[in-house]
Amino acid sequence: MMIGCQFSLYPMTDQFVEVILGAIGELHERKDLRVETDDLSTLLIGAPEPLFEALETCFVKAAATPGHLVLSATFSRGCPGEPDDPICHPVQPDKTAAQQEVDVTESEPVGIYVAAQFALYPLGISSYMEVIYREIEATKATGVFGRSKNFCTRLEGDVHHVFAALRASFERTANDAGHVVVTVTISKASPTQV
Amino acid sequence: MMIGCQFSLYPMTDQFVEVILGAIGELHERKDLRVETDDLSTLLIGAPEPLFEALETCFVKAAATPGHLVLSATFSRGCPGEPDDPICHPVQPDKTAAQQEVDVTESEPVGIYVAAQFALYPLGISSYMEVIYREIEATKATGVFGRSKNFCTRLEGDVHHVFAALRASFERTANDAGHVVVTVTISKASPTQV
Repeated sequence: MMIGCQFSLYPMTDQFVEVILGAIGELHERKDLRVETDDLSTLLIGAPEPLFEALETCFVKAAATPGHLVLSATFSRGCPGEPDDPICHPVQPDKTAAQQEVDVTESEPVGIYVAAQFALYPLGISSYMEVIYREIEATKATGVFGRSKNFCTRLEGDVHHVFAALRASFERTANDAGHVVVTVTISKASPTQV
Repeated sequence: MMIGCQFSLYPMTDQFVEVILGAIGELHERKDLRVETDDLSTLLIGAPEPLFEALETCFVKAAATPGHLVLSATFSRGCPGEPDDPICHPVQPDKTAAQQEVDVTESEPVGIYVAAQFALYPLGISSYMEVIYREIEATKATGVFGRSKNFCTRLEGDVHHVFAALRASFERTANDAGHVVVTVTISKASPTQV
């Protein structure tokens, strides 16, 4: 099963070009992902395991530079009509996969604290709000739940745990809809106090 | 009809705090919008006219500082289950509204060239891909169409025209689904050549 992602890194520093290129440079050498960068974002297409790992690695590399950094990303599973339609057409949901909640904080942290907010859009089904409500509840059990906001859910914790919570929700929802989109904003070292 | 938006400004400069606060400071004095800012984004809730005007004004103010600037925003029309549910529950779509394409470049530009990409998510309806295909075609007639990308459509032109194209698509789609989400990235002065 292939998924895709458009992501951007926003380092709030005069050295943003060096930080971005240092973080994404090696991506373009990977053979297990399709990678395309333009002035707005970088596209990744591939299997979930290497894609999530590559994206987290980019964030961690960029986060080695001190200061405020934001990652904005849109994930899509299933992309009818896209240029990659033949490789990422929705497959039938796997109804046997467990719908269980996961405590993501049992995995090893990478030591970077982030705040994040994400939204989940199961497309093409009338019961999408039931899925969203279920995922908000499931996210409360992950160990990184922050609070509900308008149009999204706030997460807080180690960046590795935040990525794990996102991925768990994205993959659970593949049981509900052939085409699922997740949008996320992940922020490190904002000077704004909350 | 109320809509809502979560947006963030990312000025790629050491002076990002001053640029952001200078751009969004006056928002919090408005009486016609609900405005809340935290470390991740600013929420706007209100009628479409003042909301789009306020957001464009924020971008223009931030863009007065030279250099690379990105705005990331998620718009939602209809928000079942949200804290604002009583004021923004989906209303019945207005089937009498025209579904026409619009050339947005006839309105006065503000003189700021941007590249943008946006995605449209009509929720809860099985015919969502037909709506998306129609909107991609409609966007080709706006005068700011760039190209189709994976998971989104690229726009290029004056920021006022880009906002007008986004809003036209968002409002047309209110005829198709009670709950519609649009995500957009708008970028000024990226050093990346495309």
